[in-house]
Amino acid sequence: MGQDTLSDNGLPAEFGFIARIFRPLAGNGALDLRDDAAVFMPPAGRELVIAADAMVEGVHFLPDDPSDTVGRKLLRCNLSDLAAMDATPLGYLMTVSMPPERDEAWFAGFASGLVRDQKRFGITLLGGDTTSTSGPLVLSLTVLGHVAPGQALRRSTARVGDGIWVTGTIGDGAMGLLARRGQVADPDHFLARRYQLPRPRLGLALGDVASAGMDVSDGLVQDLGHMARESGVGIVIHADQVPLSPAVRALGPQWLPTCLSGGDDYELLLAVPPAHEDRLLRHAARSGVAVTRIGQVVAGNGVQVRDGAGHEMVLARRGWSHVPDRG
Amino acid sequence: MGQDTLSDNGLPAEFGFIARIFRPLAGNGALDLRDDAAVFMPPAGRELVIAADAMVEGVHFLPDDPSDTVGRKLLRCNLSDLAAMDATPLGYLMTVSMPPERDEAWFAGFASGLVRDQKRFGITLLGGDTTSTSGPLVLSLTVLGHVAPGQALRRSTARVGDGIWVTGTIGDGAMGLLARRGQVADPDHFLARRYQLPRPRLGLALGDVASAGMDVSDGLVQDLGHMARESGVGIVIHADQVPLSPAVRALGPQWLPTCLSGGDDYELLLAVPPAHEDRLLRHAARSGVAVTRIGQVVAGNGVQVRDGAGHEMVLARRGWSHVPDRG
Repeated sequence: MGQDTLSDNGLPAEFGFIARIFRPLAGNGALDLRDDAAVFMPPAGRELVIAADAMVEGVHFLPDDPSDTVGRKLLRCNLSDLAAMDATPLGYLMTVSMPPERDEAWFAGFASGLVRDQKRFGITLLGGDTTSTSGPLVLSLTVLGHVAPGQALRRSTARVGDGIWVTGTIGDGAMGLLARRGQVADPDHFLARRYQLPRPRLGLALGDVASAGMDVSDGLVQDLGHMARESGVGIVIHADQVPLSPAVRALGPQWLPTCLSGGDDYELLLAVPPAHEDRLLRHAARSGVAVTRIGQVVAGNGVQVRDGAGHEMVLARRGWSHVPDRG
Repeated sequence: MGQDTLSDNGLPAEFGFIARIFRPLAGNGALDLRDDAAVFMPPAGRELVIAADAMVEGVHFLPDDPSDTVGRKLLRCNLSDLAAMDATPLGYLMTVSMPPERDEAWFAGFASGLVRDQKRFGITLLGGDTTSTSGPLVLSLTVLGHVAPGQALRRSTARVGDGIWVTGTIGDGAMGLLARRGQVADPDHFLARRYQLPRPRLGLALGDVASAGMDVSDGLVQDLGHMARESGVGIVIHADQVPLSPAVRALGPQWLPTCLSGGDDYELLLAVPPAHEDRLLRHAARSGVAVTRIGQVVAGNGVQVRDGAGHEMVLARRGWSHVPDRG
């Protein structure tokens, strides 16, 4: 139960707000957000891929992040999950739990960002819900995609001998958060932008290239640990081969551990058999995405990070957790 | 970004918590919640139906509601959306944004309730996300179902001459909230239970029976208004024909307006051509669900509520809104 407000037209405020802000985002199947649910025919002969993520103001984005980036960040984080499965996006649903003091101008910016990304990624809003909350803004998004049957990339299928590859550069998101907090320099806002707007690595057609894949969202070393554990293998990476952006390099080598363990990369982490490396490089070049080999899958378990001299680096922290310890 | 806590096994706390609480809810396709997304083959030749709803503590449920009912309430509200489209449930995804002080015992109860309803409704958890929040607990759930192509019930297709029907009884949820607040008597907790655990009216096979349908979630009169407006018709209902439970009747006739405008019913509202009424009654009897004719679709627009003498009743409020007025 919520506020008991009626707007001019005699309808509760929720409906006018949804009509103004969210209906323009709705696509075919969404029934104009006027019905109880969306209805659509899934692509024939394809498996569906579905993922959900939530973002909380003050936890995953900052209260003064531009509102047009906030919805896009959540959408792109979810699209990154589809990219990790080598899936093609279909559409999304979103629920918004909003503090009453947030004004409509903020949400107009929020929606304008989503419109841009809907065009960019060829998807539309299928449905959702708006509620009020006495706490910070909470967004939850479910994304749907499709993939050829049996071809979804998994994180549990890396094999000894595979090379370990990453797309793009690592650490920009973590350093971007520090930049947003004024803890490191970011003269041209490159890092802040990377924190606010990840780039999902869709369309690389990795199904017949990589033996395993996932996206890097909780920190490279932690996510390598997930792949190693789920695949029953060990992984060795070479810290000096991890691709860093010029902006991160300019801050100095003392930030390398932060980059290796920080979250918010939304790059792909791939295990690729040596025989497929040429194909990986061709697919990446076609998409204009850099890919870099940073290590290899070995027999055993766990993740080793080696420095330039081949010595194991010990990282104080391996990644981020989004819930407090209840152990 | 969130708390930076590591549990005993060197993994961030989030992963152990998910393994203990949520992994037991995961079904086929969810990849044990270990991958970036779930993968499943949709039923061949069926349209997919998908809906999302969020619930916020203190808004949609009360802090002292039993935790085993909280997740089930959200699941059932979403299943009610599927019932409104005459769809069959497939599975669900859920995101949980939790205050740090909430203990694991609360979530163990929460999950045990979901296990019961998963069995009852033949569905499993496909994926989700957990985050922390400095505000109240926020749950967001996306439910997936399927329906024969072109057969999903809509709210926009009611026709002049149809009878207006509802399932079950109206007003128990709204009165249950008042009972939970100590404002009305509820000696056997029937009303509180109806507020905490709605009963989605799945399986009635209404596709070839009703010309329009929706679920009653925001208050009967308000939802009738949606059906009338989307269908381009008027609706007249007779207040003394609206089915009330014995518990509500015992509270006295002064509560009738609250029942007609209160939310949280999660019954179905149907427009049924007279020629299909026998079929409706047979389908309902087979499912053990009461159905009651409360009015009819007429030419014109808007909703008229008539009392026993045929006079129009004017209701001070028509329903609930979950967001504040931003008009």
